[in-house]
Amino acid sequence: MKIITFNAGDDITQATRCCRAETAFATSTVKETVEGIIKTVRQNKDAAVKQYTQQFDGYYPEELSFSDTNGQWQLADTLNKDIQRAIEVAYENIWQFHTALLPQAVTLDQNGIRLTREYRPIERVGLYIPNGTAPLFSALLMLAIPAVIAGCKEIIVTTPPNKDGTINPVLLYAARRCGIRTLYKVGGAQAIAALAYGTETIPKVQKIFGPGNQYVTEAKLQVSCDPQGAAIDLPAGPSEVLIIADSDSRASFIASDLLAQAEHDAKSRAILLTTDVNLANAVAREIKLQLETLDRKAIAQQSLENSVIIVAPDLDTCVRISNDYAPEHLILNISNPQACLKDITNAGAVFIGPWSAEALGDYACGPNHVLPTQGYAKSYSGLGPESFMKAMTFQEITAQGLLTLAPCVELLAELEGLSGHKNSVTLRRTYLQETSYELA
Amino acid sequence: MKIITFNAGDDITQATRCCRAETAFATSTVKETVEGIIKTVRQNKDAAVKQYTQQFDGYYPEELSFSDTNGQWQLADTLNKDIQRAIEVAYENIWQFHTALLPQAVTLDQNGIRLTREYRPIERVGLYIPNGTAPLFSALLMLAIPAVIAGCKEIIVTTPPNKDGTINPVLLYAARRCGIRTLYKVGGAQAIAALAYGTETIPKVQKIFGPGNQYVTEAKLQVSCDPQGAAIDLPAGPSEVLIIADSDSRASFIASDLLAQAEHDAKSRAILLTTDVNLANAVAREIKLQLETLDRKAIAQQSLENSVIIVAPDLDTCVRISNDYAPEHLILNISNPQACLKDITNAGAVFIGPWSAEALGDYACGPNHVLPTQGYAKSYSGLGPESFMKAMTFQEITAQGLLTLAPCVELLAELEGLSGHKNSVTLRRTYLQETSYELA
Repeated sequence: MKIITFNAGDDITQATRCCRAETAFATSTVKETVEGIIKTVRQNKDAAVKQYTQQFDGYYPEELSFSDTNGQWQLADTLNKDIQRAIEVAYENIWQFHTALLPQAVTLDQNGIRLTREYRPIERVGLYIPNGTAPLFSALLMLAIPAVIAGCKEIIVTTPPNKDGTINPVLLYAARRCGIRTLYKVGGAQAIAALAYGTETIPKVQKIFGPGNQYVTEAKLQVSCDPQGAAIDLPAGPSEVLIIADSDSRASFIASDLLAQAEHDAKSRAILLTTDVNLANAVAREIKLQLETLDRKAIAQQSLENSVIIVAPDLDTCVRISNDYAPEHLILNISNPQACLKDITNAGAVFIGPWSAEALGDYACGPNHVLPTQGYAKSYSGLGPESFMKAMTFQEITAQGLLTLAPCVELLAELEGLSGHKNSVTLRRTYLQETSYELA
Repeated sequence: MKIITFNAGDDITQATRCCRAETAFATSTVKETVEGIIKTVRQNKDAAVKQYTQQFDGYYPEELSFSDTNGQWQLADTLNKDIQRAIEVAYENIWQFHTALLPQAVTLDQNGIRLTREYRPIERVGLYIPNGTAPLFSALLMLAIPAVIAGCKEIIVTTPPNKDGTINPVLLYAARRCGIRTLYKVGGAQAIAALAYGTETIPKVQKIFGPGNQYVTEAKLQVSCDPQGAAIDLPAGPSEVLIIADSDSRASFIASDLLAQAEHDAKSRAILLTTDVNLANAVAREIKLQLETLDRKAIAQQSLENSVIIVAPDLDTCVRISNDYAPEHLILNISNPQACLKDITNAGAVFIGPWSAEALGDYACGPNHVLPTQGYAKSYSGLGPESFMKAMTFQEITAQGLLTLAPCVELLAELEGLSGHKNSVTLRRTYLQETSYELA
């Protein structure tokens, strides 16, 4: 891994640029391809979806919908008990934390005006579960559990089938555990198009969630810009980790966290900021050693070529670079992490101390692992149950409330040149005054 | 206004389509124009912004930034006391309700794992205040107050200047009241481009808020799809109201609420659903009468041409049509509105009962008036303080917590084929076991 020295007075933005190249989500070729796929799916619906599945996944699905009356689902029940138990631990922790996050209604009642803001479930949501180099049943848990807690009426799950048309049994098991009884065998941009616009088989949803490759991300962006399409969770780029470490940190732990990130995707980024040049060198050595043991060594190696270790003069500088970078995952593997928590302004998820391996949070601590990447942690939240809901306000104004507010609103409406607004208040006020309406 | 009869058994979607034509946000001409403006502003920055302001607003701003050392701001202090008081009432109510909505941190601490999800302010936000047919100081209050409550460090406000380069004094007064000490004299797509990418004078922001015409909306969508751009509040189409009324409703009140909507914009929609054909006719008559008194009669008339009254067999049908339409504003002007509140699944803001004129909420009740339009109420929330913040999770796992979770996470990571994830946990577990690490 490349080691760079950052000196006091150097430009923070410059350092950030070393960590993350400025790239668009998609090239114009990807954009055009996705536009074509969306157009075709809107026109030819199921037929188009099946044909793209044949073309991209090497399997022609006679039936797109795959309900739990199919024997493959029962096979999932025969999964090894250890696996069932592990899924159960993850399920319970995710369920518990997301339940605690369920937003509560807020009500204010005074001067004859009763105001409430309340979250209600999005009725139909679409969950996209990738199945590329690995079957991501953890993504299913992270999406379906908050959707169930939010109270979504219909949860439509799509995932690309294997070449032989099967679906990974652990994914089926996890789906059943979440109460999902039907999956749809489709992936890629064609899945997003089907979810956004609906087909004969796949119901149109109102919001689409889940990670995917650049075609999936581009398709999500395109449908989210169309009022006839669907909203999306967040624009997702390649996964990232930024670790801040000092001389108290163990190089082997840090190397293992960097590699856990790097193995995701050749475009993933793993950044280390440290105040200790010896640690920087030790981590670089450890990475070489541990890399050899990885199943996905080739991917990790590619990803590490774009990753970097920065040696900075002090922790404050590390935090400032991190805030400017706004990492999806931030690991504070330093002797006194508590001291700098208040200064962290931009990060999706923060892992605190030497034992908080990011992998624990990826699977089983409880918080959601769908988090903002590519600097979006400056403005976007990771998922919570509220992502599967929308807030509505309720305003109930009594006759007394109207009389109290009328002079203010009549004047402000007049100042904005909106005489119709003013009139809607004046009419009511006059009626109350002329009829000597009995106020409660 | 056109009156349509909806019979039991008719198609709900058909009725919805009568209320809202399926339109995209922008034509391809608008898209291309906006692309050009964004490209030019990214290249030529201030110079481009000034030139576009000359071109579109008829004024060449020598200085884009307009700070409160300028005498015009002091003039704002001499505003009539009634106006100052009216702004104060609105300010206080908006402040109070949004303070009540400030999201609280949630913490869960058990089994050696301490989890927190906490909202922190977005550091730099951009507020776009239109100045077309009317100076919308109410939009400034609705955007700046929650931004201040959220704790945003920099609040950048842009608004198009008048032809003589001045800014409306009420807008300046409202800005000062919110603690804003500088405005930027720029509007349209060029303002959005400047906020998203920054210029020599206008700071780059991380999220852009505020209503605007189709060029502004298209520019917001385009910058939100670029990782180097900025996030946006929501895609905003023309404003809408849907009123549900029964035989107890007063036709004049309903007509006034429909007209208050219609006067906004020629593309605004005002829909009435009622169970009473006599009321439908009475409202149509009242609209003709009241229309004559409006300052913005021509705009309202155009808008009404696309608006519709639907006579439905029962309230349940009205609610089902409303839910499918998902109005920005829903007014329940019926004898027992409480009975159907739980059935309202999609609406931005609900106004309950005969005295709850939407105009009261537009200015002064307290809840935000920036709400989802064009059916986006199915998936988007209106603004709250959390819109100016983002959630971050904090995960602190102790050595004991790691030992508890390790078997689960090691197995799940292995099943997903991510040996690097597994290794980051195994290394720590082994270290703890081999060193007989003393657990707290």
